[in-house]
Amino acid sequence: MEETRWKEKNQYLGLTEDGRRVRLLDQSQLPNREVWLELEEQEELAEAIRTLRVRGAPAIGVFAAYALYVLARRLADRAPVEAAFRTRLREWAAGLAATRPTAVNLRWALERMLARADRTAGPPEQIVQVLERECRAIHREDGEMCRRIAEHGLTLVGEGDGILTHCNAGALAASRYGTALGPILLGQERGKKLRVFADETRPLLQGARLTAWELARAGVEVTLICDNMASMVMKNGWVQACFVGCDRVAANGDTANKIGTSGLAVLARYYNVPFYVLGPTSTIDLDCPTGADIPIEERDGEEIRSLWYQEPMAPAGVRCWDPAFDVTDHSLISAIVTEGGICRPPFGESLRELVSREKGDAP
Amino acid sequence: MEETRWKEKNQYLGLTEDGRRVRLLDQSQLPNREVWLELEEQEELAEAIRTLRVRGAPAIGVFAAYALYVLARRLADRAPVEAAFRTRLREWAAGLAATRPTAVNLRWALERMLARADRTAGPPEQIVQVLERECRAIHREDGEMCRRIAEHGLTLVGEGDGILTHCNAGALAASRYGTALGPILLGQERGKKLRVFADETRPLLQGARLTAWELARAGVEVTLICDNMASMVMKNGWVQACFVGCDRVAANGDTANKIGTSGLAVLARYYNVPFYVLGPTSTIDLDCPTGADIPIEERDGEEIRSLWYQEPMAPAGVRCWDPAFDVTDHSLISAIVTEGGICRPPFGESLRELVSREKGDAP
Repeated sequence: MEETRWKEKNQYLGLTEDGRRVRLLDQSQLPNREVWLELEEQEELAEAIRTLRVRGAPAIGVFAAYALYVLARRLADRAPVEAAFRTRLREWAAGLAATRPTAVNLRWALERMLARADRTAGPPEQIVQVLERECRAIHREDGEMCRRIAEHGLTLVGEGDGILTHCNAGALAASRYGTALGPILLGQERGKKLRVFADETRPLLQGARLTAWELARAGVEVTLICDNMASMVMKNGWVQACFVGCDRVAANGDTANKIGTSGLAVLARYYNVPFYVLGPTSTIDLDCPTGADIPIEERDGEEIRSLWYQEPMAPAGVRCWDPAFDVTDHSLISAIVTEGGICRPPFGESLRELVSREKGDAP
Repeated sequence: MEETRWKEKNQYLGLTEDGRRVRLLDQSQLPNREVWLELEEQEELAEAIRTLRVRGAPAIGVFAAYALYVLARRLADRAPVEAAFRTRLREWAAGLAATRPTAVNLRWALERMLARADRTAGPPEQIVQVLERECRAIHREDGEMCRRIAEHGLTLVGEGDGILTHCNAGALAASRYGTALGPILLGQERGKKLRVFADETRPLLQGARLTAWELARAGVEVTLICDNMASMVMKNGWVQACFVGCDRVAANGDTANKIGTSGLAVLARYYNVPFYVLGPTSTIDLDCPTGADIPIEERDGEEIRSLWYQEPMAPAGVRCWDPAFDVTDHSLISAIVTEGGICRPPFGESLRELVSREKGDAP
């Protein structure tokens, strides 16, 4: 029963039945076309990451592990010399890692796969079996982590509550439940229904293209709004909580996430709506004292001026300011929800305790 | 000198030199094409309003007055019977008024033109001369009102200040200076330079398409942002005031304006940025006690899902909530700037005083 759900629901990434190809829902074609890809060639696997057919840090990590396994298995069939096989593995991993230079999970997953291969003596066929177990374990562990975040998050809301979310931190971006959307998807499975308002999330429209799509597909009641409508949704009393993901959490709780998150948090404070950040413990960076120490990527504005459009929607050459992320002050955050539990203010203490507890648990 | 400036700057609407056609910058083609139209046929004049080639309540009023005059003049050349001429005038005015049923200025301007004709005895040629003076007066008075709003607004900011604005309440929407952009355009003329951050203003993108265009054209330093970036612009200390327009101001100061305004006002309060509403006294509705009494138009969401795009950016049929306006609570507004002066809290008193003073001034 558990296995059936796993296969059928909110699962956009995996191996084909014969284990020889990576199966993937092409996110770059959503919401207009639901195209499933089955990939096995090195170049097409790398291209899938590069062109955002797979996106979301955890999903990219899982995908890269599967990709490395699929490549290794094809080569093993041709009975290669062991040393040459190990060299090829390293080359493929380096190539995959180079597709998105800043994605932490991508390199982490590939290094974990390589380390597993290094620890395995024996012929390529044996290494391949170990790699298959390892990539499946990476996927399973990511799904398990998401489920635990979802379980904790679900305790924060009641039946029928309205939830406001921003960007996409759902099953498309991770495994099975995602992070910010986890409580919503888990609640849906358990009959604890939540009503969601999804910000479209300019300029890249992840909320419109991905969140609205995956929630509607999971049967969740979802209403799409422009980012600038969130104030009225809160004023009308339609939401009882905000759920957002996180790209990096500083030691004091300041949280970097998709641009627009900090404005939502200010609105939530004004309208007395609890504001929850959801993400894995690995996102907490105790070496980063405050949000001021988190570098924010600025992009060139073309995605504001002309991306998606039939023709440009701003005067040619007009200056744009186009930050990809913003930092939400810890004072605006009600709780940070991780797989290890719910951290409350003061975050300086609660985050430190959480991280040392999770590290203590680790093997 | 004053007249030269009038003709050259921020003037997107008027009569042709020979006074026989309405000259108009086609706003529906901005920012990609700067197309000037010269219109004289009844159907093309009505179509220009209907298809938003001219938009902004004051601009529509001025345009309609010019249109009625142009039509009257053409007919007068053919020496019609006076009674038939007067009947045609009324028919044209009714046809023009029907193009945008809710635009107050449109009907006001047409009724003023008709009343002037009614008060004029004599042949059509004489009525036409009176109508020409009247439509030019309507335009001049609107420009004068905008200039007075701009003068008052300019006292609220200092050289080099950063200003955040939303939607388009500029020279395109009114005469010469507009309302919310008035202090910026007037400051630019006087060498008191302001740096502007313009919200793109989803879903109709008036900020990107129109505000960014007209400010850049006037030589103002303007930076375009997505609506959800305003929080970081304020947090970074880049703006010293917000200037927004208004569609209706209730007796207690609650202000209906383009969707997104109320969220900006909450952010401005949080970041300690003064929040100014600018508009003509005619926008103040003392018969409307609070913002709760202002009806808010809701649209069908197609402009969120698919307008402007190469293909839809949201799943087919996904529910959208798409209000065209929102209401900003009076407690979030620092001042309301009109042609009659600057109203400060408590607005219940200051707005009542202003309106009775302006009415007293009126002829």
